[in-house]
Amino acid sequence: MTNHQVVLGIDIGGTNTVYGLVCKDGKVYGNKKIDTNGSLPASDLVNRIVLDIEKFFTINQKMDLIGIGIGAPNANYLTGIIENPPNLKWGDVNIVELFKERYNIDTLLTNDANAAALGEKNFGIAKNMDDFVLVTLGTGLGSGIFSGGKLIYGHNGLAGEMGHMIIERNGRICNCGNRGCLESYVSANGLIQTVKMYLDENPNDKFLQSINSCKIDGNMLDREFDERNKMVRKIYEYTGEKLGIGLAQVVTLLNPEAFIFYGGLSNAGDRILQYAKKSMNKNLINNHLDSAELLLSELPEGQAGIQGAASLVWSNK
Amino acid sequence: MTNHQVVLGIDIGGTNTVYGLVCKDGKVYGNKKIDTNGSLPASDLVNRIVLDIEKFFTINQKMDLIGIGIGAPNANYLTGIIENPPNLKWGDVNIVELFKERYNIDTLLTNDANAAALGEKNFGIAKNMDDFVLVTLGTGLGSGIFSGGKLIYGHNGLAGEMGHMIIERNGRICNCGNRGCLESYVSANGLIQTVKMYLDENPNDKFLQSINSCKIDGNMLDREFDERNKMVRKIYEYTGEKLGIGLAQVVTLLNPEAFIFYGGLSNAGDRILQYAKKSMNKNLINNHLDSAELLLSELPEGQAGIQGAASLVWSNK
Repeated sequence: MTNHQVVLGIDIGGTNTVYGLVCKDGKVYGNKKIDTNGSLPASDLVNRIVLDIEKFFTINQKMDLIGIGIGAPNANYLTGIIENPPNLKWGDVNIVELFKERYNIDTLLTNDANAAALGEKNFGIAKNMDDFVLVTLGTGLGSGIFSGGKLIYGHNGLAGEMGHMIIERNGRICNCGNRGCLESYVSANGLIQTVKMYLDENPNDKFLQSINSCKIDGNMLDREFDERNKMVRKIYEYTGEKLGIGLAQVVTLLNPEAFIFYGGLSNAGDRILQYAKKSMNKNLINNHLDSAELLLSELPEGQAGIQGAASLVWSNK
Repeated sequence: MTNHQVVLGIDIGGTNTVYGLVCKDGKVYGNKKIDTNGSLPASDLVNRIVLDIEKFFTINQKMDLIGIGIGAPNANYLTGIIENPPNLKWGDVNIVELFKERYNIDTLLTNDANAAALGEKNFGIAKNMDDFVLVTLGTGLGSGIFSGGKLIYGHNGLAGEMGHMIIERNGRICNCGNRGCLESYVSANGLIQTVKMYLDENPNDKFLQSINSCKIDGNMLDREFDERNKMVRKIYEYTGEKLGIGLAQVVTLLNPEAFIFYGGLSNAGDRILQYAKKSMNKNLINNHLDSAELLLSELPEGQAGIQGAASLVWSNK
């Protein structure tokens, strides 16, 4: 009998890293969540993962490791390099090389949004879709694009920077230095700025004063929204409207079947997406109206990253 | 000896239709240019083409017709239907069916910008490119997108409506009913509006007064530009700046290697593109700067459409 083949799927985040051994059907074994420790060199993280995996294989001798898939912020599929990630003190790191020194097997890297898109395509809600865009709503806004059944990388591996599409000429200053990027409105950081904007306009509003504007509690905002808090409704409507403008640009160019939202801010779900949908349609030509569904990822949060990273390898088998 | 295989390539335009028999290597035989006669039913055009082709084959008996490829405005690859083209009184026409009644062979339809993109990929400047965007600058602005070596159709066959990306919130009213679409600035129609705008601002300008604003002579504008006419320089700078905003959005999302410009207004070439490039870079994040080249199509104007339409069939062989 042949051994059971598995791929090591790793999702590197700014704070935590999750990983696990993924079968072709998506089943995950031995998944763990560890500190990324971004202040130490990347080799430290690699060492800790390899040590743990080695331990796993001494116990589970009927499994063969046939590849490693890695999702990470600012990661480039074509070069194998994580390029100076903002929340990790690594500079440019060839993480693929670091793993190749340990295991001489297929090792592939992509950015976290692409990994999540692969996860949805192989194991999630996008199984039967050839044209969709996965949107990660976290600290920033990222996207992974499937078109004609294939993930779009672009000429330099830098496709999918939807967060930096400009939706307002001379709009908000974005972290990237430009103005009016989608991400500067629709992301955790964007939400913080929107709360500040409404507080400036309504300096005596008790509720707005009560919000810790450095670290907004999304669940609290969702509860307040459900309790018909007018200010939260305005904030979500504003956010959804900006999101819809960005979605319309993508529909106009790529005509996807759906957008799939993933990550912290996506928990607000229809509270924001109802406004996004209205605004999207307002900015589309007639034959594109209602052509794209707005859906939420249904994969468990940690698992999606692991499965997605692993399917980077599995989808080539 | 087997017969020489050819595909009938047809490029249907608002005024003229060009067609010819295209070999796998792109060589074109028996090409013709005829009136589209868009006030008569589409079957009239089909009849005239079929009659002429039949004549051709009675003389050239060593050729086998193995397929028909058609490029047309408002055409949908997935349905085979030309959907109510603005300059033809056809309503919705299933042109593929009309040809299939005559020839039981592979017959494929796509919009004119996609056909031109296929032409560039198979026989033109994009031969060695996997990621590029062909932009048609005519009465309107269309686009055909190659990504990962494949033409992008989208879920409903409606991808590539770059002309209707919104580049100015509350900008010019576009023919589609929305405001601020790229096409309303960068196209023959857009140019007419820009000339009017400058005339409104400079009612006593002799040169602007002399322009027939209903049918602008691009060659004349190009000559005046070369002779350092300040007003034409302003008009082209304005047009290029708007174009660059749109290009930046596409680069941000798709990271193409190049944009290839095709059609009437593209004859202005670097006179407009120099400003487009500057504006594009101004609207990009750092790692996308200068990542996409701005190129001009090098295929002869009539031939590109025929070859492109035919390669719709050839690229499936």
